[in-house]
Order: sequence, then structure tokens, then C-alpha cells
Amino acid sequence: MYSAGRQFLQIPGPTNTPLPILAALAKPTIDHRGPEFGALGREVLEGVKEVFATEQPVVIYPASGTGAWEAALVNTLSPGDTVLMYQSGWFATLWRKMAEKLGLKVELLEGDWRSGVDAARIWAVLAEDKAHRIKAVCAVHNETSTGVTSDIAALRRAMDTTGHPALLMVDTISSLGSIDYRHDEWGVDVTVGGSQKGLMLPPGLSFNAVSQKARAAGKTARMPRSFWDWEDMIAANVNGFFPYTPATNMLQALKVALDMLREEGLPNVFSRHKRAAEATRAAVRHWGFETQCAVDAEHSPSLTAVRLPEGHSADALRAQILTNSNMPLGNGLGQLADRVFRIGHLGDFHDLMVTGTLSGVEMGLAACGIPHRAGGVDAAMRSLAGNNAPGGLLKGSAA
Amino acid sequence: MYSAGRQFLQIPGPTNTPLPILAALAKPTIDHRGPEFGALGREVLEGVKEVFATEQPVVIYPASGTGAWEAALVNTLSPGDTVLMYQSGWFATLWRKMAEKLGLKVELLEGDWRSGVDAARIWAVLAEDKAHRIKAVCAVHNETSTGVTSDIAALRRAMDTTGHPALLMVDTISSLGSIDYRHDEWGVDVTVGGSQKGLMLPPGLSFNAVSQKARAAGKTARMPRSFWDWEDMIAANVNGFFPYTPATNMLQALKVALDMLREEGLPNVFSRHKRAAEATRAAVRHWGFETQCAVDAEHSPSLTAVRLPEGHSADALRAQILTNSNMPLGNGLGQLADRVFRIGHLGDFHDLMVTGTLSGVEMGLAACGIPHRAGGVDAAMRSLAGNNAPGGLLKGSAA
Amino acid sequence: MYSAGRQFLQIPGPTNTPLPILAALAKPTIDHRGPEFGALGREVLEGVKEVFATEQPVVIYPASGTGAWEAALVNTLSPGDTVLMYQSGWFATLWRKMAEKLGLKVELLEGDWRSGVDAARIWAVLAEDKAHRIKAVCAVHNETSTGVTSDIAALRRAMDTTGHPALLMVDTISSLGSIDYRHDEWGVDVTVGGSQKGLMLPPGLSFNAVSQKARAAGKTARMPRSFWDWEDMIAANVNGFFPYTPATNMLQALKVALDMLREEGLPNVFSRHKRAAEATRAAVRHWGFETQCAVDAEHSPSLTAVRLPEGHSADALRAQILTNSNMPLGNGLGQLADRVFRIGHLGDFHDLMVTGTLSGVEMGLAACGIPHRAGGVDAAMRSLAGNNAPGGLLKGSAA
Amino acid sequence: MYSAGRQFLQIPGPTNTPLPILAALAKPTIDHRGPEFGALGREVLEGVKEVFATEQPVVIYPASGTGAWEAALVNTLSPGDTVLMYQSGWFATLWRKMAEKLGLKVELLEGDWRSGVDAARIWAVLAEDKAHRIKAVCAVHNETSTGVTSDIAALRRAMDTTGHPALLMVDTISSLGSIDYRHDEWGVDVTVGGSQKGLMLPPGLSFNAVSQKARAAGKTARMPRSFWDWEDMIAANVNGFFPYTPATNMLQALKVALDMLREEGLPNVFSRHKRAAEATRAAVRHWGFETQCAVDAEHSPSLTAVRLPEGHSADALRAQILTNSNMPLGNGLGQLADRVFRIGHLGDFHDLMVTGTLSGVEMGLAACGIPHRAGGVDAAMRSLAGNNAPGGLLKGSAA
Repeated sequence: MYSAGRQFLQIPGPTNTPLPILAALAKPTIDHRGPEFGALGREVLEGVKEVFATEQPVVIYPASGTGAWEAALVNTLSPGDTVLMYQSGWFATLWRKMAEKLGLKVELLEGDWRSGVDAARIWAVLAEDKAHRIKAVCAVHNETSTGVTSDIAALRRAMDTTGHPALLMVDTISSLGSIDYRHDEWGVDVTVGGSQKGLMLPPGLSFNAVSQKARAAGKTARMPRSFWDWEDMIAANVNGFFPYTPATNMLQALKVALDMLREEGLPNVFSRHKRAAEATRAAVRHWGFETQCAVDAEHSPSLTAVRLPEGHSADALRAQILTNSNMPLGNGLGQLADRVFRIGHLGDFHDLMVTGTLSGVEMGLAACGIPHRAGGVDAAMRSLAGNNAPGGLLKGSAA
Repeated sequence: MYSAGRQFLQIPGPTNTPLPILAALAKPTIDHRGPEFGALGREVLEGVKEVFATEQPVVIYPASGTGAWEAALVNTLSPGDTVLMYQSGWFATLWRKMAEKLGLKVELLEGDWRSGVDAARIWAVLAEDKAHRIKAVCAVHNETSTGVTSDIAALRRAMDTTGHPALLMVDTISSLGSIDYRHDEWGVDVTVGGSQKGLMLPPGLSFNAVSQKARAAGKTARMPRSFWDWEDMIAANVNGFFPYTPATNMLQALKVALDMLREEGLPNVFSRHKRAAEATRAAVRHWGFETQCAVDAEHSPSLTAVRLPEGHSADALRAQILTNSNMPLGNGLGQLADRVFRIGHLGDFHDLMVTGTLSGVEMGLAACGIPHRAGGVDAAMRSLAGNNAPGGLLKGSAA
Repeated sequence: MYSAGRQFLQIPGPTNTPLPILAALAKPTIDHRGPEFGALGREVLEGVKEVFATEQPVVIYPASGTGAWEAALVNTLSPGDTVLMYQSGWFATLWRKMAEKLGLKVELLEGDWRSGVDAARIWAVLAEDKAHRIKAVCAVHNETSTGVTSDIAALRRAMDTTGHPALLMVDTISSLGSIDYRHDEWGVDVTVGGSQKGLMLPPGLSFNAVSQKARAAGKTARMPRSFWDWEDMIAANVNGFFPYTPATNMLQALKVALDMLREEGLPNVFSRHKRAAEATRAAVRHWGFETQCAVDAEHSPSLTAVRLPEGHSADALRAQILTNSNMPLGNGLGQLADRVFRIGHLGDFHDLMVTGTLSGVEMGLAACGIPHRAGGVDAAMRSLAGNNAPGGLLKGSAA
Repeated sequence: MYSAGRQFLQIPGPTNTPLPILAALAKPTIDHRGPEFGALGREVLEGVKEVFATEQPVVIYPASGTGAWEAALVNTLSPGDTVLMYQSGWFATLWRKMAEKLGLKVELLEGDWRSGVDAARIWAVLAEDKAHRIKAVCAVHNETSTGVTSDIAALRRAMDTTGHPALLMVDTISSLGSIDYRHDEWGVDVTVGGSQKGLMLPPGLSFNAVSQKARAAGKTARMPRSFWDWEDMIAANVNGFFPYTPATNMLQALKVALDMLREEGLPNVFSRHKRAAEATRAAVRHWGFETQCAVDAEHSPSLTAVRLPEGHSADALRAQILTNSNMPLGNGLGQLADRVFRIGHLGDFHDLMVTGTLSGVEMGLAACGIPHRAGGVDAAMRSLAGNNAPGGLLKGSAA
């Protein structure tokens, strides 16, 4: 049943898809072996490198993001290999489960789910591993379950100081296209991305940006692989084509998404997300709540996980808000179930959507009788005003 | 150039068009002489009666709303006829200009642009007009320039007590489908409507709901007419067809709009608009401003015109908000130019759009240095909460 | 109910709307008073001149084509004025009825519905009219009921040789954008156009291209007019705006249509229509039927009216084809009812649509037992091959 | 660049996507953890069973069809297992390559690429394999490279008579939803399907229908698997959800596709494809060419591969037709490169698209100087007429 007005889809992804992207998705399917497709393929394969900040190949899968996790592992490792994973939250946990299902050994560093990857702990483990038993370090750039962003550059530096040859694999599913990320500069070997967050597409495409070192590792890696095989992809991609049927319409939409990001300018996109996040945290602080992220420098620009006071159900709050304001919010995952709710503020998003979203939360808090200090939206407005670039952030892109 | 996020189009119409309506608009054009069209025609011609609350014919023009003003006049009057018009605001003024251009004599009752039609003054004029020189009384139900709603039922009663035979013609362009209106019950002879406000369509369709008395008047009316002629329309409409090419795709979209209104239920639609209007006025009062409408019982549920303090430019404020928040607002018209700005809160609209809209205004006031008391959005949230139906207004229509 | 496959909508308009135009139609409605709209307005007001081949103003109405007929008359004439009309077919007849309803006197030259306007007869009448009682000559460029195109340049020359000051008004509803037409070069005073044929839009916009002489006539013309008034329009159009709410989304779509026509190139568009028409006639001749148009030089490039042998019902044939092939065709109008059917081959149309259309007709003829020589589609293919530009007509526009 | 008219996309998939499906694809993305999605998930998971003719689980992957091949193998087999594959054409070859890349041993029965799976040869091999070394038999139901359909029921019977326990895995990528197929009745263990052919969606979803026996095999199968794991999927699917982010918008579109197939009725859908195929072959025979399929009973209803006479390039012909008629056709694959071209006649397809397609081919043959007998389209029309159900095949589904 239709509910009046545009839904505020404030889960931390999939995100609100802009109409030009939806329109591109709805264009007729084209011949994936014809010249029109070849040109499209070359364009998006080249264009997508910019959001990874890489000059190296980016493999595009006609599959959702979880598949790209699997691709990273099977293209570089052999059965029984050991990987070092840092459990920063729920999605890090899921990636670990996948690695184990695939027959890898996982050495796990438990985190507190309130802070990012501790590079020093990684350093310590690698420094110990003289035998180079550990083949790869896996980390999540932006933990979608907690709203914590990890410092990947620092992690790389820590790894480098040990001289350990392990590959560095990073999940950027909820940061790609909304938080500054640099595959090449930071020395990442495999970056895992998806279409449905900062890229503003529906789910259905995923990515591996791959370093030379990762490809070299692939030469001796013995995990069985076919659908996910990088080399077949990279070979066919030279002319803009794919070794098997690609997700044609999603690629048509990706082209538009890349055009939009380029038009706004990635630095502007990243600033816009930071402003939204700061305004959201201003409201949360004003209400008297904690964010799940406990480290100032690590707050995620793309989502905020909010802890409710003991004795209050985050799921009941979310249900109330969904019913009354037609706004879905993210739930608490794993150990955070019913304890936190998550506000997505990423993708195709602007100031009035921030305040509209926060007003929905504030009205929900009141309706559910959860003690809080009213005025959170005001606080958010002051934050937005304070962070306003001269003349308005949107000035450059006003029609 | 694309500006991130969905635009808040808060002018008092055209309004935000819901996606199902846009999708219907984009369906392939069909044969306007074929059986599929006939069924569509019958359905919308019948269905649209419900929003006028009439059992009498509603003529649908493939033309924008201004055309339906002209249709009302040329179908019922003869050159040189006198009509009595009440200048409640800018749009009443435009209708008067049209009448004069068409060669009618207009007797004008000047209003103060802050209150609705004064039925007593109409009564007085008609009571004087023993010769029945006045052929029609023209009034605007909801003045889009001022945010004032007039009591049409009271106007009709006043006319009736004089026994004067003048027709009653009412403009409902910005009230149809968003404010309770009853063509039959209130004894209106011609109701003029358009597609681009409460019906949530783009501009391009307009309507005349017509009484028996109006059609009878048409028999002797000598204004030249062809395109606007009711009788050709009504005759062809019997089978769902039109005497000339109709706006096929707009009618496809109208069908969806009517389905949506019926699904939500017109009483719920009207309540939703009243809640949004009350919340908006709560913010305006909190800021310390006046609404242009000065009569409590006459506040429009579909838009609010806000008066800025002397010495402040409403147009500068609107420009700032457009640039910084990508939100167009309505400008002051005629004597209100630069003095007021207008907030549309009609059509496909819900609570978070109310608060998002008001936050854009409040941030604009701050940025422009216009003195106001912060906290207007808070006040709006309290208003929305206070007016909430048990279990949430949207409860019934949650997906 | 959905019928498998894309419908072949082969009526002579409204025509198949290309997807990019449908997508533009489905873009969100924008503020018709804002800067984005102003830019759009200026662009389409300027761009549309090219399809009329004029440097003079083109007025765009938010109304369907019939309205533009009325606009032509009320902007230039006074009640009781005489106009000379040439009854080349059904639509000429309708225009005449309109003129009479509007209180004009119509002097009618009856045609045979099988040939175009006879300029010599117009010449003769004007030459007789020493008193200049006739204020305007009205002709239809492409008769949609018969598939006959008239030579407007010749008509103008004939008028000029008499020195008679009558205005020349021409209906191009089914030729604009599909048949070469030159408002300025041919000295037309008012050209009437619509959106739903060669411009490939749905119905809902119409046009008047107006000469200086026509505007001058308007100064003394006393027909009442307001909605249709040129001068209000032209004044507001200077900045890309309109005196009353325009059909925003249709204008968004018009911009795309103009881009598409420009990209293909109008001369190529015209050639493409001629090829389709010749191929269609090749099939008709092969089947052993007559076209309604009896003059070789006057065959319409945009539609073909086909005469069935006596004793066979064109309507029954059309019904069979609609049921079996999901293809609507145009019916016979007025005196041609049930005698002819009309094949539209205009707008967004190419070779395979020609042959697909003709195969639907040929299968229908067989199914209805109408005697004909099989092989019409073959004949059409030979015609298309013979008329092929070197390298393929579509070569230039292949993606 | 836009080429006038709707493209005839006559490759054997991806197929022409109907507008209602494109519209569903372009609906806003919804929360894949919310109640609206749950209802959608349950509906499509249940509904899709009908096109597989199964009561058993169908796993839906957010990945293109090739992925579902991999899923079939990794869910049921262990490294080093032997599978028996029948090389009926290019896609069978690709599946074999995948199996080998994944570390399986492939025992290959070479086919002639002109006929379907020879059940007797399978029988012979299995009858020999007393040690049950062969774990699975893999066959392609409809070889997209050759236009040959294999008799899967016969294959199953042959396998059954040997008492051999091998699983039967069948690729239905280009038959699902266009050719009668019965997962349960025919005793298939894993059926592999994709979205982009008979289901009329873009590429991006794929399917495994799985038998109890296949799931049981999975319990001991040691191929590493995570993304493709059936059991995680089936467990989450109970409530309509998925273990990781699904391709939301594709599922929205799948719902519409299933509704459309159900509305037309699968038996009618299958008949429609057979009629199109027979008409196509009538044209091919008339032209004097051979189909690649050499066995009468095995002609594919969804595509036809046409052999050109020696010395003529199929690729040159396809290029000419693409340029001149904007119609992509399928190329010859593997050993058939440049020797055959393939005509897709599947998905959202009807009679006039058949004849339009064939006319494009016939005009191309003439333009390329390839000797052929003219009149193929005529022959196709006679075939269509002869196969017409009383009253027209489309009768039931006319709007």
C-alpha cells in the first residue's frame, strides 16, 4: 500500500537511489556483445577506478557485495591458508565466517565493536609471524554495524614496518563513494566494494580493486575459482567486454552514478557526508545518548549507530518510527541487537534529509517514552550551519 | 546540474509527483480511439467525481488550470455580461483580468488579502441587484497567494437567501484533493480544478464540475466557444472518449492518482494536510512571524504564506534557501511581492517532509540574519505529535 | 491485460513515444518560476523554431492540438469575419466547424478528399473578393484522414498573385517534424502544430508559429481571448517563462524530442518518413488496393489511407488486426468510415517497424478473406532496399 | 546516439525487457530487512517455483547465470570428483571449462553441435561405471549456441535404467520461461536458470532448483562454498529474507515478470514461442538455408541458428543488419564462428516482431549479396497464419 510522501530510507544502505540512476536502470537492455556495450564497458571500467583512487584494475562482478568478499579470498589464497582478521563488528564477523567456510584458517583479533582496527595489534601479530604463515590481513574500512571507520593507511604502515609479506584486503562496502579512500596510496592489495551504498545504485554489482602483488599471489593460489576469477575478467575487460553475461542495466546505471559523483566532485561528496554525520552526532549528543563509536577520530561519515539507554528497546523504537513516519532505520546486529539503532546518512543525501530524518527519530523517542532532551534537531541545524561552506555547500551544484 | 538528494519542492504547486504517477505518465501512449482507452476514460471520468464530491459531470480538459477558468466563463455567459468577483488575493485578480479580456463586465469586491470571501458583502450586492444584472459570482476556495480558505457553503447560503439567480463559480485549483470540498452539497455551479496540486500530477489537465443550472445557462450563453465547449465533451464522454485528442498519458497518470487518493481515503488525505498546516503554523508562531492569513478559521491546509518583519526581503530569503538547501518556496505575488514567502505543504506529503521543509526555512532565516526565535522545528514536532491519531496517522497505510 | 511484446501503435498519431522522451516526462516536476525552468523554457522556445523553419515567435500552449486551431482564429479575427477554408478531408471539416462555432463565417471550397488544396480555386475566390471580405485562408498541410499532403508554397504564391491581404493559416498537426515544412520561406501567417505526432511526445502541447502580419492583425481582432492570447505569451517567453502554469513535464520531454530530431538531422528525419511511405505504398499496390490519395505528388510521408475493395469492412479488418496482432490502425473518418483504414508510419519509426506493420496488415487481410495479392511485404522490402542511401540510412545514427 | 525507432534486440538473450518490468526495476530500493521486503521475498520465492515446475526449493542468487552453474557444482561435489558432460555446443563447453577450473574431473561426450544430448551414450557410460566414479551428469536443455533442445525426460529415464546414483544437473538458461520444462516430473536434481531470457529481466539474477537428493549430496560435498551455499539461503528464505543483501530491485522486477507469465499462462507462453520458431524456420527453409539444428524434433522454440552457404560471412551479415536495421543478432560461437548467425525469438515477443525480425534478415541477405530465395517473410506469415489458434493466439490476452 502506498504511504503518502517519499519514503526516507535511512538504513545504512542500500541507499536512496537518485532518479537519474533509476531511469538508467530502466533503459532497454542492450546487446552485451555489441559495440554500444563495448563503449559502455570501457567507460565504467575506467571510471570506477576514480572512486577507488587506483590506477590498477577494478574487477566488476554481476553479483552483490558478499560475492566480492569471496572473490578477494579465492583469487589469492590456497586451501588451509591462514588469514588474520580483526573483528571490529558484525560484518567483520561475517567475513570471517565466510573465510572459514571456504576452508581457510582465521586468526582473529577481537575488537570491542566501539573502535577501529588497532594497527599496533596487527603489527604485533605479524612481527611474531616469522614463518609468514599469515597470508593476508583482512579489515573493514567502515564497520556498517557500529559506525566506526578504521585508519587503513596506518594499518598499512604498521604492516610495512614488520616487513611481513601478507596481503592487505579491505572491505569498503559502506565507505566507497562516501568516505575518502585510496587503494593505491594506502597500499591496499584487494579492496572490496559494492554498488548499493555510496554509489547510489541498487544492490547487484560488486568490485575488487586489485594490486599487482595480489595478482601475483593469484598465480600460485589454489582455491578453486571460476566465476570469481580475476584474470578471465581482466583479459576480457581490455575491450570493455566480460567473460560471461554482465549485469547490463546495472552497468548503464553505474555510468550515470559515476557521472554524478564526478560532477559533484568526490571531495565535495566526502565533505557532504561528514557534515551530515556531524549534524547527526550533534543531535545524538543533545538527546543525551552515546554513539556506538567511542573514538572521536573514528566516527563514520556514512552512518551513526546510536545506543539507547538501558531498558529501552531499539527495535521497538524502529518499529514505531517505521509505522508513524514511514522511515526504516538500521537494526542492531549481533551483540548489539535491540541495543542500538543505526541511522544511514549516505549516498544521495542532503541537509533537509538529515533534519527530516532526525526529526523522525526525535518524534519516535517522544512517542516511545524514551527519556531524552528535546532539541536534537535544533542542535543538528546549528551544526549544519556551523559547517556550512561560504555561500552554501550546494552552491556549486545548484542547477 | 544534479544537486545531491531529492529536491524538496515546497512551492504551493505544482507539487511533488509520486513515483507511481510518474511511472504511469511514462507508459506508452495508447490509441485514444481504441477499447483500452475507452475503459480508461470511463474510469477516470467517473472516478474524478469523488474528489469534487459530485454526481454531476466533470469535464476534463487537455489543458492547464487557467484554461478551466476560461471554460467556466465561456460556457455560461454572453459578451457584456456582468460577473461579481471577490478579490481575495492574486489569483482572484488574475481571474478578473481574464473575465475582462473576454469581454465581460466585472464588478469587484476588494478584499484585504488576509481573509476569505465575505459572504455578507456578496449578499448585500446581490440583494441590491433586483434586475439580476449579475450573472455569476466567482470566488476562490483556497487563495494560493495568501493561504486563506473561504467558506463556500456560507457563500452559497448567503446567495440563496437573496433569491438571486446568479451562478456560483469556484476556483479549487489549490484545494482540490487536499481540502474538503463539496460541489453538490454546497450548491456550486461550476468548480474549476487542476491536476498539479492535490491530485499530485504535473500541470496539463484541468477540470470543470458543472451543475444542471450551469449547463442550462449554457444553452443561451453567447460567448464563442469550441475547444472549451462542455456539451461536446459530455456527449463524447458517455463512452469514455473525447471529441478531440485527449492528453492520453496524463489520463493514465490521473487513474493512478485517483487510486492513490481512494486507497488513503479522502478524509485521511484532508486530515494529513491539516496536520501539516498546523505544524507549519506552530513553527511560524514560534519564530515570531505572522501568517498572511489573519483569520483563525480560514488558514489553508495546503499552503502557508508567511510575512517577514519589515525591512527583510522574502525574495532574498528564498534565494538563499534555494541555493543552500535546494528547496524552492513560493514567492509573494502582487502587493505581497518580497513581503511574504509561501510554503506549500500539499500533495504527496508527510511529517518528515514538514519538518525537513521547516528546518530549511529556519536555517535560511539564520543564514540571512532575519531575527527570529530558534526552535520552530521543535514546535512543529510538538504540534505533529499532539495531532497524531492513536497509533500513528500513517498506520492504516503502512505497507 | 498485458499482451506479449511491444505494441505496434500504427495509428497516424499519437505515435510511439521513444523511451528517452518517456523518461524525461517522468522526471520530477520542477518550479515553473525558478531558474532551472527559465533555462528550459528559453531552450525549448528557441529550439522549437527549427521544426517550423521560422525565426518568428512560436507560442507553446499547455493544451492539445485542437486548442491551437482555436488560438489561430481568436488571435487574428473578429466576430463575423469570413474565412476561406478548403475541405480536403475530415480534419479540415472539423476546423471549419470550430470556426463556425466561434462565430466566424466560413466560405468553403469542397474538395474530393483524394487530392490536396487546389491553389487555383483559392486564387479564383480571392481574385473575386475585391472587398477583401475574406480575412484568412485556412488549409491543412497533411490531411490525417486521407494521407494527402498539400503544396503550401504553391498556395501562398497563388494568394500573392491576387494581392489579396488575407492571412494564411496552416494546420501541420500530422506533418510537423515528419514532413518538410517552412513557415517563413513559404510565407505562412499562422502555423498550427501539436506534440503527439512527428514530435514523438504524448498529446498535451500545441503550437502557433506566428508572422508579424498575423500579430499585427491581432491588434484589431476583436474575438475574445485570454488563455490563447499570443501577446501575453510572447511577452513572458522572453525570459523563458509563461503567463500561467505551463505543462512542465511536457516541456522537459519536448527538450529531449528536439535534441533527438536535431541529432538525427531534420532532412534525415524527412527522408526516413518518405522511405517508409513509399514502402507502404509499394505493399498497397502489390496487394491490389488503391490509396485514398489519388495524386502521385501528394502522397503523405507520414500516413497512408488504404481503400478496401467494395463490400469489405475496413473496421472489421482493423478489429481483427487489433485482436490478433495487437496493432491499432486508424479508422476511416466521416465519409470514409469503414471504407478505408489508415496506417501511421511517422515519428519514432524505422524499416523493421514498416515491414512488421505491413505484415500485420497482410496477415489480417488473409484472415478476413479480403481478396489481395500476397507478397506486399516483399514489395515493401524491395522498395526499402531500392531507396537505401549508400551504407544504410541509419548509418549516420547507429550507436 | 539514438537511432530512430525501437531496437529489435534479436540476440538469444538478454531479451527485450517489457516496460512494466523496467518500471518495477526503477522503483525505489526498499529495506531488505523490512516487512515490505519480506512479503516480496516470500512471493517471488514461491512464485518462481512455477516456472521450474517444482515444489522444491529454488535458490535465487543476486548474480548472473554463470554463477548458478558454479553454485550447482560447489554445492554437490568434492574436489577431484568426476562429472559426465555432454558437449552439445558452446555453452556446454563453457560449463565444462568451469568444472575443470574448479578442480573437478570432466568426462566428456563430444556431440556434433547439431543435435541434442544422446541419452543412449550417457546410458552406456553410466552402465559401465560400476564404481560410481561419476557423481553427476551435466546437460544443457536448450543449447543457446546451436538452437537445439535436448530431451531431458529421456535422459533421466536412461540414467534411471542403469540404477546409477549420479545427480542430473541441467542448464535451462535459455529455456526457462519459454520452453516447457519440468524439474520435478523429469527428476532433475539441480536446474540452473537465469533472469535475462524467458523471464524477460535484465541479467543479474540466477537460480538453482534443487532436489532432496542434491541437498543430501551437499552434506558430504567438500567443495569450498559460502556465497553459493544453498543451505544458508534456504534457511533464510523461510521468511522471505536472504543471508546477505539481495538484488532488491531485480526481485521487484521478478515479481512483475512472474505476474505477467502467470497472466498469459505458461502453456500459452510456450505455444507462442513455438509459433515464432516455426515461422522463423519456414523463412530459413524458404531462403534455402539450413538450420544448425539437424534434428526435427529438437528445434529450439527460443532461438534459431542459421547456417550460411559456404563462402559467406555470417559476421559481415550481422554487421550489415546492425548498421542498416539497428538489429543485433547472435554470432556463431566456437567452431561456428562466422558460419552461423542466431536469431533470438524469445521473451516478450509476438508475431509482428517475428516478421519484422525476418524482414531485417532478408533485407540484409540481399544487401550482402548472399544467394537466397526471396519470400522468406511471406513463408513466415503463412506459417503464423497456419498455426493460429482459432480467434487469434493473442485473443485471450487482448487488453
